[in-house]
Amino acid sequence: MIAVDWGTSNFRAYRLDGEGAMVARRSSPQGILRVAGGNFEQALRAEIGDWLAAGETQVLLCGMIGSRQGWVETKYLPCPAGVADLTAALQPVPFPEARVLLVPGVMGSDSAGVPEVMRGEETAAMGILDACGGEALVCFPGTHSKWLQLSDRRICRFTTFMTGEMYSAVRNGTILGRMMAGDVSAAGAAFLAGVARAGQEGGLLHHLFGVRTLGLMGRLGEEDAASYLSGLLIGHEVRAAMQGQAVVHLVGTAALCGLYAHAVHACGGEAKIENEDAAALGLAAIGRRVHWI
Amino acid sequence: MIAVDWGTSNFRAYRLDGEGAMVARRSSPQGILRVAGGNFEQALRAEIGDWLAAGETQVLLCGMIGSRQGWVETKYLPCPAGVADLTAALQPVPFPEARVLLVPGVMGSDSAGVPEVMRGEETAAMGILDACGGEALVCFPGTHSKWLQLSDRRICRFTTFMTGEMYSAVRNGTILGRMMAGDVSAAGAAFLAGVARAGQEGGLLHHLFGVRTLGLMGRLGEEDAASYLSGLLIGHEVRAAMQGQAVVHLVGTAALCGLYAHAVHACGGEAKIENEDAAALGLAAIGRRVHWI
Repeated sequence: MIAVDWGTSNFRAYRLDGEGAMVARRSSPQGILRVAGGNFEQALRAEIGDWLAAGETQVLLCGMIGSRQGWVETKYLPCPAGVADLTAALQPVPFPEARVLLVPGVMGSDSAGVPEVMRGEETAAMGILDACGGEALVCFPGTHSKWLQLSDRRICRFTTFMTGEMYSAVRNGTILGRMMAGDVSAAGAAFLAGVARAGQEGGLLHHLFGVRTLGLMGRLGEEDAASYLSGLLIGHEVRAAMQGQAVVHLVGTAALCGLYAHAVHACGGEAKIENEDAAALGLAAIGRRVHWI
Repeated sequence: MIAVDWGTSNFRAYRLDGEGAMVARRSSPQGILRVAGGNFEQALRAEIGDWLAAGETQVLLCGMIGSRQGWVETKYLPCPAGVADLTAALQPVPFPEARVLLVPGVMGSDSAGVPEVMRGEETAAMGILDACGGEALVCFPGTHSKWLQLSDRRICRFTTFMTGEMYSAVRNGTILGRMMAGDVSAAGAAFLAGVARAGQEGGLLHHLFGVRTLGLMGRLGEEDAASYLSGLLIGHEVRAAMQGQAVVHLVGTAALCGLYAHAVHACGGEAKIENEDAAALGLAAIGRRVHWI
Protein backbone atom coordinates (compact mmCIF):
# COMPACT_ATOMS: atom_id res chain seq x y z
CA MET A 1 0.00 0.00 0.00
CA ILE A 2 1.07 3.58 -0.57
CA ALA A 3 0.25 6.11 2.13
CA VAL A 4 0.26 9.80 1.20
CA ASP A 5 0.06 12.79 3.54
CA TRP A 6 -0.69 15.59 1.06
CA GLY A 7 -0.82 18.96 2.71
CA THR A 8 -0.87 22.61 1.72
CA SER A 9 2.90 22.96 1.40
CA ASN A 10 4.29 19.41 1.28
CA PHE A 11 3.75 16.00 -0.30
CA ARG A 12 4.89 13.01 1.79
CA ALA A 13 4.57 9.43 0.54
CA TYR A 14 5.32 6.14 2.26
CA ARG A 15 5.46 2.64 0.75
CA LEU A 16 4.17 0.11 3.25
CA ASP A 17 4.44 -3.70 3.22
CA GLY A 18 1.59 -6.14 4.00
CA GLU A 19 2.01 -5.59 7.74
CA GLY A 20 1.98 -1.81 7.36
CA ALA A 21 5.72 -1.48 7.96
CA MET A 22 7.45 1.32 6.07
CA VAL A 23 9.74 0.08 3.31
CA ALA A 24 10.36 3.42 1.56
CA ARG A 25 9.55 7.09 1.95
CA ARG A 26 9.89 10.26 -0.02
CA SER A 27 8.73 13.85 0.19
CA SER A 28 8.60 16.89 -2.06
CA PRO A 29 7.40 20.48 -1.91
CA GLN A 30 4.45 19.58 -4.19
CA GLY A 31 1.83 20.66 -1.67
CA ILE A 32 -1.65 21.18 -3.08
CA LEU A 33 -1.11 24.90 -3.63
CA ARG A 34 1.91 24.15 -5.88
CA VAL A 35 0.23 21.65 -8.18
CA ALA A 36 0.05 23.38 -11.56
CA GLY A 37 -3.50 23.80 -12.83
CA GLY A 38 -4.85 21.59 -10.05
CA ASN A 39 -3.88 18.49 -12.04
CA PHE A 40 -3.57 16.22 -9.03
CA GLU A 41 -3.80 13.00 -11.05
CA GLN A 42 -0.68 13.93 -12.98
CA ALA A 43 1.07 15.22 -9.84
CA LEU A 44 0.43 11.94 -8.00
CA ARG A 45 1.75 9.97 -10.98
CA ALA A 46 4.88 12.12 -11.08
CA GLU A 47 5.54 11.53 -7.38
CA ILE A 48 4.87 7.79 -7.04
CA GLY A 49 4.57 6.48 -10.60
CA ASP A 50 7.57 4.19 -10.15
CA TRP A 51 5.99 2.53 -7.10
CA LEU A 52 2.77 1.98 -9.07
CA ALA A 53 4.77 0.52 -11.98
CA ALA A 54 6.39 -1.82 -9.46
CA GLY A 55 2.97 -3.30 -8.65
CA GLU A 56 1.35 -1.14 -5.94
CA THR A 57 -2.40 -0.83 -6.51
CA GLN A 58 -3.66 0.65 -3.24
CA VAL A 59 -3.23 4.34 -2.37
CA LEU A 60 -4.58 6.07 0.74
CA LEU A 61 -4.47 9.88 0.95
CA CYS A 62 -5.02 12.28 3.83
CA GLY A 63 -4.62 16.01 4.39
CA MET A 64 -5.62 19.18 2.56
CA ILE A 65 -5.84 17.19 -0.69
CA GLY A 66 -9.44 16.55 0.47
CA SER A 67 -10.27 20.26 0.78
CA ARG A 68 -12.06 22.60 -1.60
CA GLN A 69 -8.63 23.58 -3.00
CA GLY A 70 -7.64 19.92 -3.37
CA TRP A 71 -8.47 17.00 -5.66
CA VAL A 72 -11.88 15.85 -4.40
CA GLU A 73 -13.61 17.73 -1.58
CA THR A 74 -14.64 15.37 1.22
CA LYS A 75 -17.25 16.21 3.83
CA TYR A 76 -15.94 16.67 7.34
CA LEU A 77 -16.72 13.74 9.63
CA PRO A 78 -18.15 14.86 13.00
CA CYS A 79 -16.49 14.09 16.35
CA PRO A 80 -16.16 11.65 18.00
CA ALA A 81 -14.16 9.89 15.28
CA GLY A 82 -11.83 6.89 15.39
CA VAL A 83 -10.20 4.52 12.92
CA ALA A 84 -13.46 2.69 12.14
CA ASP A 85 -15.34 5.97 11.54
CA LEU A 86 -12.64 7.33 9.24
CA THR A 87 -12.43 4.02 7.34
CA ALA A 88 -16.20 3.95 6.82
CA ALA A 89 -16.11 7.48 5.38
CA LEU A 90 -13.29 7.01 2.87
CA GLN A 91 -13.91 8.79 -0.41
CA PRO A 92 -12.89 7.11 -3.72
CA VAL A 93 -10.88 9.21 -6.17
CA PRO A 94 -10.88 8.35 -9.88
CA PHE A 95 -7.39 7.23 -10.94
CA PRO A 96 -6.60 4.77 -13.75
CA GLU A 97 -3.64 2.78 -12.41
CA ALA A 98 -4.69 2.15 -8.80
CA ARG A 99 -7.49 2.27 -6.27
CA VAL A 100 -7.19 5.66 -4.54
CA LEU A 101 -9.12 6.47 -1.35
CA LEU A 102 -9.16 9.72 0.58
CA VAL A 103 -9.50 10.05 4.37
CA PRO A 104 -12.04 12.79 5.27
CA GLY A 105 -11.26 15.67 7.58
CA VAL A 106 -12.99 15.96 10.94
CA MET A 107 -15.16 18.73 12.37
CA GLY A 108 -16.19 19.61 15.90
CA SER A 109 -16.91 22.67 17.97
CA ASP A 110 -15.49 24.30 21.05
CA SER A 111 -17.26 24.90 24.36
CA ALA A 112 -18.94 28.01 22.90
CA GLY A 113 -20.20 26.22 19.80
CA VAL A 114 -17.70 27.80 17.41
CA PRO A 115 -16.81 25.30 14.68
CA GLU A 116 -13.46 23.53 14.39
CA VAL A 117 -12.09 21.75 11.34
CA MET A 118 -8.97 19.79 10.44
CA ARG A 119 -7.60 17.72 7.59
CA GLY A 120 -4.65 15.46 8.23
CA GLU A 121 -4.21 15.63 11.98
CA GLU A 122 -7.12 13.21 12.52
CA THR A 123 -5.19 10.56 10.56
CA ALA A 124 -1.91 11.27 12.33
CA ALA A 125 -3.68 10.97 15.68
CA MET A 126 -4.77 7.45 14.69
CA GLY A 127 -1.08 6.68 14.21
CA ILE A 128 -0.14 7.28 17.83
CA LEU A 129 -3.07 5.56 19.54
CA ASP A 130 -0.89 2.67 20.75
CA ALA A 131 1.90 5.01 21.86
CA CYS A 132 -0.41 7.21 23.93
CA GLY A 133 -2.87 4.53 25.04
CA GLY A 134 -5.86 6.07 23.25
CA GLU A 135 -6.59 8.49 26.11
CA ALA A 136 -4.49 11.58 25.66
CA LEU A 137 -4.09 15.24 24.86
CA VAL A 138 -2.22 15.48 21.55
CA CYS A 139 -0.71 18.67 20.13
CA PHE A 140 0.29 19.26 16.51
CA PRO A 141 2.26 22.52 16.65
CA GLY A 142 2.45 24.67 13.53
CA THR A 143 0.87 27.44 11.47
CA HIS A 144 -2.53 26.49 12.87
CA SER A 145 -1.72 24.34 15.91
CA LYS A 146 -4.25 21.63 16.72
CA TRP A 147 -4.87 20.18 20.19
CA LEU A 148 -6.87 16.93 20.12
CA GLN A 149 -8.46 15.27 23.10
CA LEU A 150 -8.49 11.49 22.57
CA SER A 151 -10.76 9.30 24.60
CA ASP A 152 -11.32 5.57 24.12
CA ARG A 153 -9.15 5.70 20.95
CA ARG A 154 -11.34 8.32 19.29
CA ILE A 155 -11.01 12.09 18.81
CA CYS A 156 -13.70 13.55 21.05
CA ARG A 157 -12.90 17.27 20.57
CA PHE A 158 -10.13 19.55 19.34
CA THR A 159 -9.05 23.18 19.35
CA THR A 160 -7.06 25.29 16.90
CA PHE A 161 -4.62 28.10 17.70
CA MET A 162 -3.27 30.42 14.99
CA THR A 163 0.11 30.59 16.70
CA GLY A 164 2.50 30.00 13.80
CA GLU A 165 0.64 32.29 11.44
CA MET A 166 0.45 35.03 14.08
CA TYR A 167 4.19 34.74 14.67
CA SER A 168 4.77 35.49 10.98
CA ALA A 169 2.17 38.26 10.88
CA VAL A 170 3.67 39.98 13.94
CA ARG A 171 7.21 39.56 12.72
CA ASN A 172 6.53 40.74 9.16
CA GLY A 173 3.68 43.18 9.69
CA THR A 174 4.33 45.13 12.89
CA ILE A 175 6.91 47.44 14.42
CA LEU A 176 8.12 44.49 16.53
CA GLY A 177 9.74 42.88 13.49
CA ARG A 178 12.16 45.81 13.31
CA MET A 179 13.46 44.93 16.78
CA MET A 180 14.48 41.42 15.67
CA ALA A 181 17.57 39.96 14.07
CA GLY A 182 17.83 36.26 13.24
CA ASP A 183 15.44 33.42 13.81
CA VAL A 184 14.05 31.63 16.83
CA SER A 185 16.86 29.70 18.44
CA ALA A 186 16.51 26.54 20.51
CA ALA A 187 14.55 26.96 23.72
CA GLY A 188 16.90 29.24 25.64
CA ALA A 189 16.49 31.96 28.24
CA ALA A 190 14.69 34.41 25.92
CA PHE A 191 12.17 31.79 24.76
CA LEU A 192 11.45 30.75 28.35
CA ALA A 193 11.13 34.38 29.43
CA GLY A 194 8.42 34.76 26.77
CA VAL A 195 6.65 31.61 28.01
CA ALA A 196 6.73 32.92 31.58
CA ARG A 197 5.46 36.33 30.46
CA ALA A 198 2.40 34.63 28.93
CA GLY A 199 1.31 33.63 32.44
CA GLN A 200 1.29 37.20 33.75
CA GLU A 201 -1.47 39.82 33.86
CA GLY A 202 -2.61 41.84 30.88
CA GLY A 203 -3.23 39.44 28.01
CA LEU A 204 -1.49 38.88 24.69
CA LEU A 205 -2.18 42.31 23.14
CA HIS A 206 -0.45 43.93 26.11
CA HIS A 207 2.37 41.39 26.34
CA LEU A 208 3.27 41.97 22.70
CA PHE A 209 4.03 45.63 23.41
CA GLY A 210 6.61 44.47 25.96
CA VAL A 211 8.74 43.14 23.09
CA ARG A 212 9.13 46.77 22.07
CA THR A 213 9.64 48.37 25.48
CA LEU A 214 12.05 45.68 26.71
CA GLY A 215 14.04 46.28 23.53
CA LEU A 216 13.93 50.09 23.90
CA MET A 217 15.18 49.79 27.49
CA GLY A 218 18.04 47.48 26.52
CA ARG A 219 16.57 44.51 28.39
CA LEU A 220 15.93 42.39 25.26
CA GLY A 221 18.59 42.21 22.56
CA GLU A 222 17.57 42.10 18.91
CA GLU A 223 19.12 38.64 18.56
CA ASP A 224 16.82 37.38 21.38
CA ALA A 225 13.62 39.16 20.40
CA ALA A 226 12.36 36.53 17.93
CA SER A 227 12.78 33.77 20.53
CA TYR A 228 11.01 35.89 23.16
CA LEU A 229 8.10 36.52 20.78
CA SER A 230 7.91 32.83 19.95
CA GLY A 231 7.87 31.93 23.65
CA LEU A 232 5.18 34.52 24.31
CA LEU A 233 2.86 33.16 21.62
CA ILE A 234 3.53 29.48 22.33
CA GLY A 235 3.17 30.18 26.05
CA HIS A 236 -0.26 31.71 25.51
CA GLU A 237 -1.27 28.72 23.39
CA VAL A 238 0.01 26.07 25.81
CA ARG A 239 -1.57 27.71 28.86
CA ALA A 240 -4.95 27.99 27.15
CA ALA A 241 -4.82 24.47 25.70
CA MET A 242 -3.47 22.42 28.60
CA GLN A 243 -6.23 23.37 31.02
CA GLY A 244 -4.58 21.62 33.91
CA GLN A 245 -3.78 18.39 32.09
CA ALA A 246 -0.44 16.87 32.92
CA VAL A 247 0.79 15.07 29.80
CA VAL A 248 0.95 16.48 26.27
CA HIS A 249 1.84 14.24 23.31
CA LEU A 250 3.58 16.24 20.58
CA VAL A 251 3.60 15.40 16.87
CA GLY A 252 5.62 17.52 14.45
CA THR A 253 9.10 18.50 13.38
CA ALA A 254 11.85 17.97 15.93
CA ALA A 255 12.64 21.69 16.21
CA LEU A 256 9.05 22.78 16.86
CA CYS A 257 8.33 19.86 19.21
CA GLY A 258 11.45 20.79 21.15
CA LEU A 259 10.19 24.35 21.69
CA TYR A 260 6.72 23.14 22.68
CA ALA A 261 8.13 20.53 25.06
CA HIS A 262 10.03 23.25 26.91
CA ALA A 263 6.90 25.41 27.03
CA VAL A 264 4.82 22.50 28.37
CA HIS A 265 7.42 21.84 31.08
CA ALA A 266 7.51 25.53 32.00
CA CYS A 267 3.71 25.44 32.40
CA GLY A 268 3.91 22.50 34.79
CA GLY A 269 3.17 19.70 32.34
CA GLU A 270 5.01 16.73 30.92
CA ALA A 271 5.71 16.46 27.17
CA LYS A 272 6.13 13.30 25.13
CA ILE A 273 7.42 13.68 21.59
CA GLU A 274 5.74 11.11 19.33
CA ASN A 275 6.73 9.64 15.97
CA GLU A 276 7.00 12.40 13.38
CA ASP A 277 5.61 9.97 10.76
CA ALA A 278 2.37 9.52 12.68
CA ALA A 279 0.37 10.18 9.48
CA ALA A 280 1.95 7.11 7.81
CA LEU A 281 1.12 5.00 10.85
CA GLY A 282 -2.45 6.28 10.87
CA LEU A 283 -2.90 5.61 7.16
CA ALA A 284 -1.54 2.09 7.72
CA ALA A 285 -4.07 1.52 10.52
CA ILE A 286 -6.92 2.70 8.29
CA GLY A 287 -5.58 0.79 5.28
CA ARG A 288 -5.62 -2.48 7.21
CA ARG A 289 -9.40 -2.15 7.63
CA VAL A 290 -10.13 -1.44 3.96
CA HIS A 291 -11.56 -4.17 1.72
CA TRP A 292 -9.45 -3.07 -1.24
CA ILE A 293 -11.02 -5.41 -3.81
CA MET B 1 0.43 80.55 22.92
CA ILE B 2 0.60 77.90 20.24
CA ALA B 3 -0.04 74.30 21.29
CA VAL B 4 1.20 71.52 19.00
CA ASP B 5 0.40 67.81 19.23
CA TRP B 6 3.03 66.40 16.86
CA GLY B 7 2.68 62.68 16.41
CA THR B 8 4.00 59.95 14.15
CA SER B 9 1.39 60.47 11.43
CA ASN B 10 -0.21 63.85 12.11
CA PHE B 11 0.60 67.45 13.03
CA ARG B 12 -2.12 69.29 14.98
CA ALA B 13 -1.71 72.93 16.04
CA TYR B 14 -3.96 75.14 18.19
CA ARG B 15 -3.73 78.88 18.73
CA LEU B 16 -4.78 79.72 22.28
CA ASP B 17 -5.62 83.06 23.83
CA GLY B 18 -4.39 84.35 27.21
CA GLU B 19 -6.97 82.25 29.06
CA GLY B 20 -6.04 79.12 27.13
CA ALA B 21 -9.19 79.20 25.00
CA MET B 22 -8.81 77.94 21.45
CA VAL B 23 -9.04 80.69 18.84
CA ALA B 24 -7.82 78.70 15.81
CA ARG B 25 -6.81 75.19 14.90
CA ARG B 26 -5.28 73.38 11.97
CA SER B 27 -3.88 69.97 11.19
CA SER B 28 -1.82 68.34 8.46
CA PRO B 29 -0.36 64.92 7.66
CA GLN B 30 3.14 66.25 8.48
CA GLY B 31 3.74 63.68 11.21
CA ILE B 32 7.35 63.26 12.28
CA LEU B 33 7.95 60.39 9.87
CA ARG B 34 6.93 62.57 6.92
CA VAL B 35 9.21 65.52 7.68
CA ALA B 36 11.76 65.54 4.87
CA GLY B 37 15.33 65.14 6.11
CA GLY B 38 14.23 65.52 9.71
CA ASN B 39 14.19 69.31 9.28
CA PHE B 40 11.67 69.97 12.03
CA GLU B 41 12.53 73.65 12.38
CA GLN B 42 11.55 74.29 8.79
CA ALA B 43 8.49 72.04 9.09
CA LEU B 44 7.21 73.93 12.14
CA ARG B 45 7.74 77.24 10.34
CA ALA B 46 5.82 75.96 7.32
CA GLU B 47 2.89 74.89 9.50
CA ILE B 48 2.52 77.88 11.88
CA GLY B 49 4.75 80.62 10.41
CA ASP B 50 1.78 82.93 9.87
CA TRP B 51 0.77 82.69 13.55
CA LEU B 52 4.36 83.51 14.56
CA ALA B 53 4.41 86.45 12.16
CA ALA B 54 1.19 87.63 13.80
CA GLY B 55 3.02 87.93 17.13
CA GLU B 56 2.91 84.54 18.87
CA THR B 57 6.18 83.86 20.71
CA GLN B 58 5.34 80.82 22.88
CA VAL B 59 5.11 77.30 21.45
CA LEU B 60 4.50 74.13 23.46
CA LEU B 61 4.95 70.73 21.77
CA CYS B 62 3.98 67.23 22.82
CA GLY B 63 3.99 63.79 21.21
CA MET B 64 6.47 61.71 19.25
CA ILE B 65 8.31 64.90 18.26
CA GLY B 66 10.20 64.26 21.54
CA SER B 67 11.27 60.75 20.54
CA ARG B 68 14.54 59.52 19.09
CA GLN B 69 13.01 59.89 15.61
CA GLY B 70 11.84 63.42 16.44
CA TRP B 71 13.39 66.86 16.85
CA VAL B 72 14.97 66.67 20.32
CA GLU B 73 14.86 63.44 22.32
CA THR B 74 13.46 64.02 25.80
CA LYS B 75 13.95 61.66 28.71
CA TYR B 76 10.82 59.87 29.89
CA LEU B 77 9.45 61.23 33.16
CA PRO B 78 8.62 58.46 35.66
CA CYS B 79 5.12 57.88 37.08
CA PRO B 80 3.40 59.32 39.03
CA ALA B 81 3.28 62.44 36.87
CA GLY B 82 0.93 65.41 36.85
CA VAL B 83 0.82 68.91 35.37
CA ALA B 84 3.45 70.28 37.75
CA ASP B 85 5.83 67.37 37.07
CA LEU B 86 5.48 67.74 33.30
CA THR B 87 5.94 71.50 33.49
CA ALA B 88 9.10 71.14 35.56
CA ALA B 89 10.56 68.74 32.98
CA LEU B 90 9.92 70.80 29.83
CA GLN B 91 12.77 70.63 27.35
CA PRO B 92 13.76 73.77 25.40
CA VAL B 93 14.16 73.43 21.64
CA PRO B 94 16.33 75.91 19.69
CA PHE B 95 14.15 77.97 17.35
CA PRO B 96 14.89 81.55 16.23
CA GLU B 97 11.47 83.18 16.12
CA ALA B 98 9.87 81.89 19.34
CA ARG B 99 10.42 80.13 22.64
CA VAL B 100 9.71 76.45 21.97
CA LEU B 101 9.31 73.93 24.81
CA LEU B 102 8.71 70.20 24.56
CA VAL B 103 6.65 68.12 27.02
CA PRO B 104 8.49 64.88 27.90
CA GLY B 105 6.96 61.43 27.54
CA VAL B 106 6.20 59.34 30.61
CA MET B 107 7.44 55.90 31.61
CA GLY B 108 6.16 53.33 34.06
CA SER B 109 5.94 49.60 34.43
CA ASP B 110 3.20 47.00 34.70
CA SER B 111 2.58 44.66 37.63
CA ALA B 112 5.31 42.34 36.32
CA GLY B 113 7.90 45.09 36.01
CA VAL B 114 7.80 45.27 32.21
CA PRO B 115 8.40 48.86 31.08
CA GLU B 116 5.73 51.10 29.60
CA VAL B 117 6.30 54.30 27.63
CA MET B 118 4.14 56.96 26.01
CA ARG B 119 4.55 60.32 24.33
CA GLY B 120 1.50 62.53 23.90
CA GLU B 121 -1.16 60.73 25.91
CA GLU B 122 0.29 62.09 29.19
CA THR B 123 -0.41 65.61 27.96
CA ALA B 124 -3.89 64.78 26.67
CA ALA B 125 -4.71 63.19 30.03
CA MET B 126 -3.89 66.50 31.72
CA GLY B 127 -6.51 68.06 29.46
CA ILE B 128 -9.40 66.04 30.86
CA LEU B 129 -8.56 66.24 34.57
CA ASP B 130 -11.48 68.56 35.28
CA ALA B 131 -13.87 66.52 33.14
CA CYS B 132 -13.03 63.25 34.88
CA GLY B 133 -12.34 64.63 38.33
CA GLY B 134 -8.70 63.59 38.40
CA GLU B 135 -9.53 60.03 39.56
CA ALA B 136 -10.28 57.92 36.52
CA LEU B 137 -9.43 55.18 34.08
CA VAL B 138 -8.71 56.82 30.72
CA CYS B 139 -8.39 54.97 27.42
CA PHE B 140 -6.76 56.30 24.25
CA PRO B 141 -7.76 53.75 21.59
CA GLY B 142 -5.56 53.34 18.54
CA THR B 143 -2.56 51.61 16.96
CA HIS B 144 -1.05 51.19 20.42
CA SER B 145 -3.95 51.79 22.79
CA LYS B 146 -3.05 53.33 26.14
CA TRP B 147 -5.01 52.90 29.37
CA LEU B 148 -4.04 55.39 32.07
CA GLN B 149 -5.00 55.19 35.71
CA LEU B 150 -5.31 58.70 37.13
CA SER B 151 -5.26 59.28 40.86
CA ASP B 152 -5.20 62.66 42.63
CA ARG B 153 -4.83 64.38 39.21
CA ARG B 154 -1.65 62.47 38.34
CA ILE B 155 -0.95 59.48 36.10
CA CYS B 156 -0.06 56.69 38.51
CA ARG B 157 0.29 53.83 36.00
CA PHE B 158 -0.61 52.91 32.43
CA THR B 159 -0.78 49.93 30.10
CA THR B 160 -0.37 49.57 26.33
CA PHE B 161 -2.23 47.19 24.01
CA MET B 162 -1.13 46.66 20.40
CA THR B 163 -4.73 46.34 19.27
CA GLY B 164 -4.82 48.60 16.23
CA GLU B 165 -1.52 47.36 14.87
CA MET B 166 -2.56 43.73 15.37
CA TYR B 167 -5.80 44.37 13.51
CA SER B 168 -3.78 45.54 10.51
CA ALA B 169 -1.27 42.69 10.80
CA VAL B 170 -4.02 40.06 10.97
CA ARG B 171 -6.00 41.62 8.19
CA ASN B 172 -3.03 42.11 5.85
CA GLY B 173 -0.78 39.23 6.85
CA THR B 174 -2.94 36.17 7.54
CA ILE B 175 -5.45 33.91 5.83
CA LEU B 176 -8.22 35.73 7.74
CA GLY B 177 -7.81 38.82 5.55
CA ARG B 178 -8.99 36.77 2.57
CA MET B 179 -12.32 36.18 4.32
CA MET B 180 -13.02 39.92 4.60
CA ALA B 181 -14.63 42.48 2.33
CA GLY B 182 -14.95 46.11 3.34
CA ASP B 183 -14.01 47.92 6.51
CA VAL B 184 -15.18 47.86 10.09
CA SER B 185 -18.66 49.29 10.23
CA ALA B 186 -20.26 51.03 13.19
CA ALA B 187 -20.72 48.82 16.24
CA GLY B 188 -23.30 46.38 14.94
CA ALA B 189 -24.12 42.75 15.57
CA ALA B 190 -20.87 41.36 14.12
CA PHE B 191 -18.71 43.73 16.17
CA LEU B 192 -20.60 42.86 19.36
CA ALA B 193 -20.40 39.14 18.56
CA GLY B 194 -16.61 39.55 18.43
CA VAL B 195 -16.61 41.41 21.76
CA ALA B 196 -18.69 38.64 23.35
CA ARG B 197 -16.42 35.97 21.88
CA ALA B 198 -13.44 37.59 23.63
CA GLY B 199 -15.00 36.65 26.98
CA GLN B 200 -15.17 32.94 26.17
CA GLU B 201 -12.71 30.13 26.76
CA GLY B 202 -9.60 29.54 24.69
CA GLY B 203 -7.75 32.85 24.39
CA LEU B 204 -7.08 35.16 21.48
CA LEU B 205 -4.98 32.77 19.36
CA HIS B 206 -7.87 30.31 19.39
CA HIS B 207 -10.61 32.91 18.93
CA LEU B 208 -8.86 34.23 15.81
CA PHE B 209 -9.25 30.86 14.08
CA GLY B 210 -13.00 31.15 14.60
CA VAL B 211 -13.05 34.00 12.07
CA ARG B 212 -12.05 31.38 9.51
CA THR B 213 -14.31 28.52 10.60
CA LEU B 214 -17.38 30.72 11.09
CA GLY B 215 -16.77 32.00 7.56
CA LEU B 216 -16.24 28.50 6.14
CA MET B 217 -19.49 27.34 7.74
CA GLY B 218 -21.46 30.30 6.39
CA ARG B 219 -22.04 31.77 9.84
CA LEU B 220 -19.98 34.94 9.26
CA GLY B 221 -20.32 36.82 5.96
CA GLU B 222 -17.25 38.39 4.39
CA GLU B 223 -18.85 41.83 4.78
CA ASP B 224 -19.10 41.24 8.56
CA ALA B 225 -15.75 39.56 9.15
CA ALA B 226 -13.71 42.77 9.61
CA SER B 227 -16.16 44.05 12.23
CA TYR B 228 -16.10 40.69 14.02
CA LEU B 229 -12.28 40.72 14.07
CA SER B 230 -12.28 44.29 15.37
CA GLY B 231 -14.74 43.36 18.13
CA LEU B 232 -12.66 40.32 19.04
CA LEU B 233 -9.45 42.32 19.44
CA ILE B 234 -11.06 45.32 21.16
CA GLY B 235 -13.01 42.92 23.39
CA HIS B 236 -9.79 41.25 24.51
CA GLU B 237 -8.23 44.64 25.19
CA VAL B 238 -11.19 46.06 27.11
CA ARG B 239 -11.63 42.95 29.27
CA ALA B 240 -7.94 42.89 30.18
CA ALA B 241 -7.76 46.63 30.82
CA MET B 242 -10.98 47.32 32.72
CA GLN B 243 -10.23 44.90 35.54
CA GLY B 244 -13.60 45.37 37.13
CA GLN B 245 -13.65 49.16 36.96
CA ALA B 246 -16.98 50.69 36.07
CA VAL B 247 -16.26 53.92 34.17
CA VAL B 248 -13.91 54.35 31.23
CA HIS B 249 -13.11 57.81 29.83
CA LEU B 250 -12.35 57.65 26.11
CA VAL B 251 -10.18 60.09 24.16
CA GLY B 252 -9.80 59.71 20.40
CA THR B 253 -11.59 59.97 17.09
CA ALA B 254 -15.36 59.75 17.21
CA ALA B 255 -15.49 56.52 15.18
CA LEU B 256 -12.98 54.65 17.34
CA CYS B 257 -14.43 55.97 20.61
CA GLY B 258 -17.86 54.82 19.43
CA LEU B 259 -16.60 51.25 18.92
CA TYR B 260 -14.83 51.24 22.28
CA ALA B 261 -17.86 52.67 24.08
CA HIS B 262 -19.96 49.78 22.79
CA ALA B 263 -17.28 47.30 23.85
CA VAL B 264 -17.08 48.84 27.33
CA HIS B 265 -20.87 48.64 27.70
CA ALA B 266 -20.86 45.01 26.53
CA CYS B 267 -18.25 44.23 29.20
CA GLY B 268 -20.43 45.72 31.92
CA GLY B 269 -18.84 49.17 32.16
CA GLU B 270 -19.85 52.71 31.45
CA ALA B 271 -18.09 54.80 28.80
CA LYS B 272 -17.69 58.57 28.70
CA ILE B 273 -16.35 60.10 25.51
CA GLU B 274 -14.13 63.06 26.33
CA ASN B 275 -13.01 66.06 24.27
CA GLU B 276 -11.10 64.90 21.21
CA ASP B 277 -8.81 67.96 21.57
CA ALA B 278 -7.65 66.89 25.01
CA ALA B 279 -4.02 67.43 23.97
CA ALA B 280 -4.70 71.13 23.33
CA LEU B 281 -6.36 71.44 26.73
CA GLY B 282 -3.45 69.66 28.40
CA LEU B 283 -0.89 71.89 26.66
CA ALA B 284 -2.90 74.92 27.78
CA ALA B 285 -2.84 73.69 31.38
CA ILE B 286 0.92 73.18 31.24
CA GLY B 287 1.47 76.46 29.38
CA ARG B 288 -0.30 78.42 32.11
CA ARG B 289 2.36 77.28 34.59
CA VAL B 290 5.36 78.20 32.43
CA HIS B 291 7.35 81.33 33.17
CA TRP B 292 7.81 82.13 29.50
CA ILE B 293 10.20 85.06 29.94
